[in-house]
Amino acid sequence: MGKNLTSREEDYSKWYNELVTKADLAENSGVRGCMVIKPYGYAIWEKMQAQLDKMFKETGHKNAYFPLFIPKSYFSKEASHVDGFAKECAVVTHYRLKNAEDGSGIVVDETAKLEEELIVRPTSETIIWDTYRKWIQSYRDLPLLINQWANVVRWEMRTRLFLRTSEFLWQEGHTAHETKAEAIEEAEKMMNVYANFAESFMAIPVIKGTKTASERFAGALETYCIEALMQDGKALQAGTSHFLGQNFAKAFDVKFANKEGKQDYVWATSWGVSTRLMGALIMTHSDDNGLVLPPKLAPEQVVIVPIYRNEEQKNAIAEVANQIKTLLNKNNISVNFDNRDTYKPGWKFNEYELKGVPIRLVIGPNDLEKKTVELSRRDTLAKQTIPLDHVLDVIQKTLDSIQKNLYERALNYRNNHITLVDTYADFKNLLETKGGFLSAHWDGTPETEERIKEETKATIRCVPIDNTLESGICIYSGKPSTQRVLFAKAY
Amino acid sequence: MGKNLTSREEDYSKWYNELVTKADLAENSGVRGCMVIKPYGYAIWEKMQAQLDKMFKETGHKNAYFPLFIPKSYFSKEASHVDGFAKECAVVTHYRLKNAEDGSGIVVDETAKLEEELIVRPTSETIIWDTYRKWIQSYRDLPLLINQWANVVRWEMRTRLFLRTSEFLWQEGHTAHETKAEAIEEAEKMMNVYANFAESFMAIPVIKGTKTASERFAGALETYCIEALMQDGKALQAGTSHFLGQNFAKAFDVKFANKEGKQDYVWATSWGVSTRLMGALIMTHSDDNGLVLPPKLAPEQVVIVPIYRNEEQKNAIAEVANQIKTLLNKNNISVNFDNRDTYKPGWKFNEYELKGVPIRLVIGPNDLEKKTVELSRRDTLAKQTIPLDHVLDVIQKTLDSIQKNLYERALNYRNNHITLVDTYADFKNLLETKGGFLSAHWDGTPETEERIKEETKATIRCVPIDNTLESGICIYSGKPSTQRVLFAKAY
Repeated sequence: MGKNLTSREEDYSKWYNELVTKADLAENSGVRGCMVIKPYGYAIWEKMQAQLDKMFKETGHKNAYFPLFIPKSYFSKEASHVDGFAKECAVVTHYRLKNAEDGSGIVVDETAKLEEELIVRPTSETIIWDTYRKWIQSYRDLPLLINQWANVVRWEMRTRLFLRTSEFLWQEGHTAHETKAEAIEEAEKMMNVYANFAESFMAIPVIKGTKTASERFAGALETYCIEALMQDGKALQAGTSHFLGQNFAKAFDVKFANKEGKQDYVWATSWGVSTRLMGALIMTHSDDNGLVLPPKLAPEQVVIVPIYRNEEQKNAIAEVANQIKTLLNKNNISVNFDNRDTYKPGWKFNEYELKGVPIRLVIGPNDLEKKTVELSRRDTLAKQTIPLDHVLDVIQKTLDSIQKNLYERALNYRNNHITLVDTYADFKNLLETKGGFLSAHWDGTPETEERIKEETKATIRCVPIDNTLESGICIYSGKPSTQRVLFAKAY
Repeated sequence: MGKNLTSREEDYSKWYNELVTKADLAENSGVRGCMVIKPYGYAIWEKMQAQLDKMFKETGHKNAYFPLFIPKSYFSKEASHVDGFAKECAVVTHYRLKNAEDGSGIVVDETAKLEEELIVRPTSETIIWDTYRKWIQSYRDLPLLINQWANVVRWEMRTRLFLRTSEFLWQEGHTAHETKAEAIEEAEKMMNVYANFAESFMAIPVIKGTKTASERFAGALETYCIEALMQDGKALQAGTSHFLGQNFAKAFDVKFANKEGKQDYVWATSWGVSTRLMGALIMTHSDDNGLVLPPKLAPEQVVIVPIYRNEEQKNAIAEVANQIKTLLNKNNISVNFDNRDTYKPGWKFNEYELKGVPIRLVIGPNDLEKKTVELSRRDTLAKQTIPLDHVLDVIQKTLDSIQKNLYERALNYRNNHITLVDTYADFKNLLETKGGFLSAHWDGTPETEERIKEETKATIRCVPIDNTLESGICIYSGKPSTQRVLFAKAY
């Protein structure tokens, strides 16, 4: 196809890296581990943001903004949180540079050393709970339902665009409640919001579940998650929602007077999704020709490419194309009419396939005569010639059909990759040959979980919500088990 | 009024600080110089963002995202830029913390020292131009019109909420062009976009102009600005747009092949507005009762407060209120029906005045009988009783009228505070007694500018666009001058 894209079969990882850069989604920057999100990639992220933001607001949340920097001492206040987050992070130690005395350039001014180092936020629980202490006095101040859109930094040694970068963009919700039950309800609600978003907008089927103790967020009593499956059989955690109990309230002394006037610590949740979702989107739907985007998140849903041999044809086609564009725009369908002379039609076909535009319309001299247009859909690459009269109707139906088809295709793949396994030998074998989720009995101990991880690199992705209880025998230890859990290798 | 708000006359600065916190706009955080933007303040910022973003996209710009960190060496590449920006900044020197050996807590891991320090971006020209080198090869890649919404950090010793904080939120546009003329046109266009936004949405009249050489952005050949006037007679720079010439292209070696195949350096602009605009909004319109918001930026345009003595009245009023709310919502007017039992009507009146909600509707038992509602407008505090039948029409007209009135009130004040001055004695006197913009002749030298600043704290805010040329005598040096410029004390 002239795209020089490595095929998925040849090298999935290489295919991904090439696709991300060639489709103009993101690239590595001059700063180790930090990416540049290019305009086309950012436009997809903006669509995801807008939809999520709407869903957060519909569930009663408001946005706010908290500081980028967190004093080092804040991290030490919540015992398990510090181990999870305060280690691999960017540390600000000075607040001034100066000209070197030897004229060699600028150097750190050692006289401008901070008394206490500042950590660039890896997540904001500590600074936010330090603030909530001032905001919460009484039950009338609860629930406090706040979200933040922000950048965060977690120092990473091995980075991959979108999937693992030192700086990434995300949203983090932080809520405070009167009761334990309300906080749990909130954490579950947000897991459901994420699942709904993933399935209805990203066309990615997800499994809702809870994490095991060792995979939990540092400081949480329960971590809810949505797990997706990529085309190479590896799982990807697409969003998490944490029930934090009273841990942060106690660490930051956040109490409220309840209706009876008694003081109590508030109950907390936090939940987040990040630009990592871009990785999930790419790896769920795209193919060897490039990106495949669900219509609901495509910055351009339709591209019109004209084919002409002379100025007269060009003008006549432009007239038709502009009419189509106006009609589609009126019906909230985004359209790019690419009538640049500087690129040939073949180049454009390649380009928009690479960029995953859901529908391509081609108009040539024959179409003018016959009052038709050629429609190709990106998901199946199928072409059809349609009468101009029906263009709106066909396009609306085709966009719906693509959205649905992508979801179903991914669902079929995912469902075909959940395998019940009853022996450790099968487990190891299937992990290498088929991949996907392996549903297996586990004795419930972190020791077994850790050994399986060490020996196979598979982790327990989740205990599915509403899991069926059934007695069985742990595939590793042979000890009794009460339920199957989902293992997989994961991003 | 029970708000305990210091009056503007008593202490303008104290009034501002109190208002920002009491109206729940922002507060200081536990991190020196960094603010927390509270949900109500952030909701206003979101409305500003949404409108600006729309205007940027309508003028052909796309959003992208560049790294938070900038390698120290990047700053040294553009000679004047380094002096302006690489000094007071947050410096990341390490990437890991560890448990102290003596068990005293966590400390910086000295073995995890960065080879090259990273600067938390104070502005992104350097990292962006380092990226543009890879994106621009030919005239076909131009113009490159990109904007970024981001947080930036400039270490400040004395901070004030919104006006001067170490971390702030902003947008920064960075564009690349084939010709000098195009880049200048872009810089001027964005100044006009800012002016249009300030006047049409924020209801703040601004003066468009250019900065003198010493007030220019570090690295710019020309800085365009919009200057607003606050109620205390001090000016506030509300936005800037820079023509950067080929400085950054040369520093980062960004060349393109023009239509003739010849290599040339590209021409650049950058432009930005920040959460500082929140300060301008507050100080332009608000009064001793609290915030006053232009309807176009108010998160809630109408609040409905019910007054009732019993459950029956409460329910009957709620029915009417909900009808009004539905009607207004349908017409894109945002409404908060505050029927909380936990607060009294008087408390609510105070609260919504403090928060600057443009229109308050009160419905009591009498109104039920007479099919009326009491409307108060926040800008004039005037009240009127209106028939329910006319509620939509009256509210639409009143919102328009408030938006217009705020602008005109501010324009009158501003116009009454541009004073022509011809002697340095008058200049100094007026600066202390009346404030505002002083239009005075200046000999054009940085030396005179600097001395006036040292002696009076007044700076040249701008040389207005389309300034009338007239010969005169510099108020300070007595040397010949070709035009008047605008001086003021400024935020």
